[in-house]
Amino acid sequence: MSTDIIFKAIGVVHSPFTDAVGMPIQPAAADGVEGSVEVFAEYAEGLRDLDGFSHVILLYHFHRAGDVRLVVTPFLDTEPRGVFATRAPSRPNAIGLSVVRLLGVEGNVLCVQGVDVLDGTPLLDVKPYVPEFDRETKVRIGWLQGRAKGARERKSDDRFE
Amino acid sequence: MSTDIIFKAIGVVHSPFTDAVGMPIQPAAADGVEGSVEVFAEYAEGLRDLDGFSHVILLYHFHRAGDVRLVVTPFLDTEPRGVFATRAPSRPNAIGLSVVRLLGVEGNVLCVQGVDVLDGTPLLDVKPYVPEFDRETKVRIGWLQGRAKGARERKSDDRFE
Repeated sequence: MSTDIIFKAIGVVHSPFTDAVGMPIQPAAADGVEGSVEVFAEYAEGLRDLDGFSHVILLYHFHRAGDVRLVVTPFLDTEPRGVFATRAPSRPNAIGLSVVRLLGVEGNVLCVQGVDVLDGTPLLDVKPYVPEFDRETKVRIGWLQGRAKGARERKSDDRFE
Repeated sequence: MSTDIIFKAIGVVHSPFTDAVGMPIQPAAADGVEGSVEVFAEYAEGLRDLDGFSHVILLYHFHRAGDVRLVVTPFLDTEPRGVFATRAPSRPNAIGLSVVRLLGVEGNVLCVQGVDVLDGTPLLDVKPYVPEFDRETKVRIGWLQGRAKGARERKSDDRFE
């Protein structure tokens, strides 16, 4: 029904998390965790002016995600939920999204904080985080109501590998 | 240096914008604009529970983006900027991101508001918007300082086609 859309990694995420089990499940839980985002040299010119931003949106490939599952039981719940109502990796297109703090840019490397990403994860894109575009108020969060804050303590297990 | 990462459209965005020229450049400028996000029937099961959320993150393919450019002059500026410090479509991996209001879910169709997306755009992913994960405060926005609000009035031209 639809044709392939082909992307390439533009870099790689380096983090202390070498095992998908026991990881923070969201940036909020990786608050003090520093990591780096290496952008391959051929794309480094695109990082110009990024150092003015305090936060960036990382898009990356959940390269260790297992089979696609349309209904999953998320880390923060005991009920099965539609995968598009979760942030689980086992989505039809395994794209991950994290908003992280940008501590600095050194050449082709971003020093970041709050990185809830597995070491070695292929990077797809970096975007500046802009409250006028990305920040919403008066938000309802469905099944995550009363559970989202639990992400600070909750660690991953192997259910999505 | 890196292998292909292959995705497929999981749906298509329907909006009033059939021409990339004269479009709102961010959801903030498309505030009252309603559109729909059709998720192909084979993925509809993944939409379960999404109706509890007031906002969703759409990831989509900038299918009409022209050549990759690492330095661009964004709609909101007169200076050239590194593409990763902008939201311009001409990025190495042409992935667009918009946070939109979810008005309702009817079968495999999401009714959304604030859709700054070209009609016919291939959908890559839908994620729930969760303030605990996605909302940052105390943010610096570099070159966009004093310019981001201009997105409400600014319309696109053909520079990225």
